[in-house]
Amino acid sequence: MGDFNQSVILEAIRRSGEGLSRTELVETTGLSAQTVTNITRRLIADGLIDEAGRTISGPGKPRTTLRLNAGSRLSIGVHLDPTTMTFVLLDLAGSVIADDARRTPPGTADQLITAMADGVADLIRGAGITTDDVAGIGVAAPGPLDAERGTVIDPPKLHSWHRVPLRDALAAATGIDVTLEKDTTAAAVAELWRGDDPSSGSFLFVYLGSGIGTALVIDGDVVRGASRNVGEVGHIIVDPDGPACACGRRGCVDVVCTPAAIVQRAEHAGLFGATPEADAPAVVDARFTQLCAQADAGEQPALRILEEAIGHFSVLVSSLTNMLDVDRVVLGGPFWSRAERTALRVLPVLLEAQSATRAVRGLPVSGTVVGEEVGAIGAGCLVLDEILTPRASALLLDS
Amino acid sequence: MGDFNQSVILEAIRRSGEGLSRTELVETTGLSAQTVTNITRRLIADGLIDEAGRTISGPGKPRTTLRLNAGSRLSIGVHLDPTTMTFVLLDLAGSVIADDARRTPPGTADQLITAMADGVADLIRGAGITTDDVAGIGVAAPGPLDAERGTVIDPPKLHSWHRVPLRDALAAATGIDVTLEKDTTAAAVAELWRGDDPSSGSFLFVYLGSGIGTALVIDGDVVRGASRNVGEVGHIIVDPDGPACACGRRGCVDVVCTPAAIVQRAEHAGLFGATPEADAPAVVDARFTQLCAQADAGEQPALRILEEAIGHFSVLVSSLTNMLDVDRVVLGGPFWSRAERTALRVLPVLLEAQSATRAVRGLPVSGTVVGEEVGAIGAGCLVLDEILTPRASALLLDS
Repeated sequence: MGDFNQSVILEAIRRSGEGLSRTELVETTGLSAQTVTNITRRLIADGLIDEAGRTISGPGKPRTTLRLNAGSRLSIGVHLDPTTMTFVLLDLAGSVIADDARRTPPGTADQLITAMADGVADLIRGAGITTDDVAGIGVAAPGPLDAERGTVIDPPKLHSWHRVPLRDALAAATGIDVTLEKDTTAAAVAELWRGDDPSSGSFLFVYLGSGIGTALVIDGDVVRGASRNVGEVGHIIVDPDGPACACGRRGCVDVVCTPAAIVQRAEHAGLFGATPEADAPAVVDARFTQLCAQADAGEQPALRILEEAIGHFSVLVSSLTNMLDVDRVVLGGPFWSRAERTALRVLPVLLEAQSATRAVRGLPVSGTVVGEEVGAIGAGCLVLDEILTPRASALLLDS
Repeated sequence: MGDFNQSVILEAIRRSGEGLSRTELVETTGLSAQTVTNITRRLIADGLIDEAGRTISGPGKPRTTLRLNAGSRLSIGVHLDPTTMTFVLLDLAGSVIADDARRTPPGTADQLITAMADGVADLIRGAGITTDDVAGIGVAAPGPLDAERGTVIDPPKLHSWHRVPLRDALAAATGIDVTLEKDTTAAAVAELWRGDDPSSGSFLFVYLGSGIGTALVIDGDVVRGASRNVGEVGHIIVDPDGPACACGRRGCVDVVCTPAAIVQRAEHAGLFGATPEADAPAVVDARFTQLCAQADAGEQPALRILEEAIGHFSVLVSSLTNMLDVDRVVLGGPFWSRAERTALRVLPVLLEAQSATRAVRGLPVSGTVVGEEVGAIGAGCLVLDEILTPRASALLLDS
């Protein structure tokens, strides 16, 4: 149980922010005073925590506060999106020390890896550190993934990606270990890291990117699935009257709830002029921004389109929450904040009406506490997780 | 960790069937010889296991085999279905010692409780035991449930049920502790108990009763949810061209995939004559039997209806497996075995085609290993679980 207990102590100290005394650690963790003393001695020797002054509280010996040595380990998170690559440098507390974003090159595999490695190198250089200071790189990419090979299976828009051994090629190009994860799962990891009460509770994370994906947390643990591909929901049917989908049916999430689909509906409703470029990511992005702004300003046609889209979106969310009976729903991803105002007004009412358990419980809905870089930050947290957090594999019996 | 280790040893002995020696327990569990000796001594004193002879294998001292004392604890499982109540008496090995079934009375709450208590009393009397010999009663009922109050929220067909404090009233009427669980979750518990490799793996259990429900097992643990209501899937849309549903949309599981819906389609296709009694449970049951038998005999009209229904059913299953990325799918429930032959031929192909991860993995589909009484047996296993199985709450730190 040694590794597990160490992780429990590190996690308690990290979450405290201000630090904890050994006595407080005994109270918080339920571990014995001897165990706390032994483990904290080791953590100080390893440089992961340090003694941060003494506090006098009441009679008796003053207490020494133990604090996370946030600068002792660093990680890099990269979010690889069809249009944008986002880079963050995190310290051991999960704080963003530096960040950067650049266009995802639409070219060959080599160009992609080179551009990613350049981004990592620039981030390291800009922060005045070296490669050796980075414990690892987490890469968040759109699923589904081939976790074994470290590749993206069938990415939308950038078909060359599935030939790219992303994980291994980036590790070779940077000289740093790389972990590959679905962007949606990475986002849920970030939410767990930053959220207030992560050790308990279950939530569905719904990620609004170019596509709609989800992630699942049960009892404080990220559920990854048999092939690390939990969360593929693009072909759940949400609108029986919806347009045809490439899958052969119609009304799927992929053709109803994505920003491209919503913007297209707005175009059909006359809110935007027809353009052959309507599907281009930059056009979708700009039009989605405009649509949400108009809705926020109370303009009825835009509001109607957006509310209708949120209505269809609620069918997806309630399908999943009725199946999974989670404590709450968290929304995030690059398109979230624009739709947030309308969504947080409309969605809870719609979910309540569709809840199979409305007689016994409510279903809180909130936006992510992490913000737009949630994918990249989550990717960086994956690496920190390996340093800090209790893992099931560490739960060995017979200590 | 004492309770946890005890549960690990009991579970290892139970699963071995033939019993294990102390040396084999050390090898199987990873616990120390001293821990195994201490715990097995206690288990023998409690009567949960006994010494069942010695085996000589190679040189050295003969080994004493420790075996579960299956008769030392008994539980009763009751499956409360709109049409039938099923009762089973289980021993500690999960074997069915006695069983019974009777019609669910359509009358008042009092009549329901009385009938259930009578069934329990008859089962006890018939087995030649007394109330004191029964460790507890597990009741499996259609969800959603109000777990706190021990009631069924909004049961189909029997509206008086939601006023019935099932759990407490049955406990009062029988003098035995009662645990209430969703029938689908109970079925998954039974599958875990009887399956070969329950400690690892994740599966979706799809339960074919009067309604379609599901249960979820992740990494060998049943996922119950915030209000113990995991698995409500009746309003997931599976057929955009399907009939209208009471929820206001159309093509939901509830109006497309249930036996009543399938039988109704067969009637519209001219396979059955129109009758005002078409919705009556007994008529649906008989017609579903006939439809499946005709399909098994290769009669095209019946086969077409059943295959079409399985096609819609595959949309539900793939919606959930793409979301949850489970290792496998298990099917069961009272209507399963009739449809099994056609379903096991058609369903795997359909799920493969709809799988988001078909490039990296297959998705095995199988029928339950437990059989038709899966709900009742699972309900009885809930009680045995409390005696035998490691629980998260027992996983305390700092032993």
